[in-house]
Amino acid sequence: MEIKKINIRNKFLQISDYWSPKIIAEINDYQFKLAKIKGEFIWHGHKDTDEAFIVVEGSMNIELEEGTVSLNEGEMYVVKKGVEHKPYAEKECMIMLIEPRGVINTGEKIGELTAANDTWI
Amino acid sequence: MEIKKINIRNKFLQISDYWSPKIIAEINDYQFKLAKIKGEFIWHGHKDTDEAFIVVEGSMNIELEEGTVSLNEGEMYVVKKGVEHKPYAEKECMIMLIEPRGVINTGEKIGELTAANDTWI
Repeated sequence: MEIKKINIRNKFLQISDYWSPKIIAEINDYQFKLAKIKGEFIWHGHKDTDEAFIVVEGSMNIELEEGTVSLNEGEMYVVKKGVEHKPYAEKECMIMLIEPRGVINTGEKIGELTAANDTWI
Repeated sequence: MEIKKINIRNKFLQISDYWSPKIIAEINDYQFKLAKIKGEFIWHGHKDTDEAFIVVEGSMNIELEEGTVSLNEGEMYVVKKGVEHKPYAEKECMIMLIEPRGVINTGEKIGELTAANDTWI
């Protein structure tokens, strides 16, 4: 019998689009999502929840009102509930997000960059 | 102004004991904990919650009634609520756990291996 474990880096091979988080695992009602990002995202917040960012490969920045956090591989940051933030990455970067099920990537700023929030890979 | 980000590998430098998870971050009421493990843990379950294991460095195994999951660096596994499991690692292994605040490492099997569940590093 094979028990299903998850290889995080291999999962990224199934992602071709930027800024479109895909779910890889769930604990209770919280989800682990992977995303490839490149370029600039939009300013947004999540009014009901904190959100964790972990960089799996590459580098990214998270602009906040109070300054910019630069994250490299193996670094993480928690954006607190309601805090406006704008992620960006000069080069392609691979990240893991941890947040409750149902979070929308753009928060309430529904638009071109809004992605499906229920796609598993 | 410096914004506090977390370097996961560096945090392990603050851990000297085995099987004693330390909290490094929190989103809402969920926590990210790091632990160094080596040798055998005990069979136990968490009756109220799922638990995610991610191997940051090294290799570990999780024995389950249905078989054994072997996890290497960058791999993860979710032990579902109530499922009895026994982690072990032949050599020192560094792992990240994600679970709700307040989880006890040994579940209801309180004993020598039961660690504090509120230590931040």
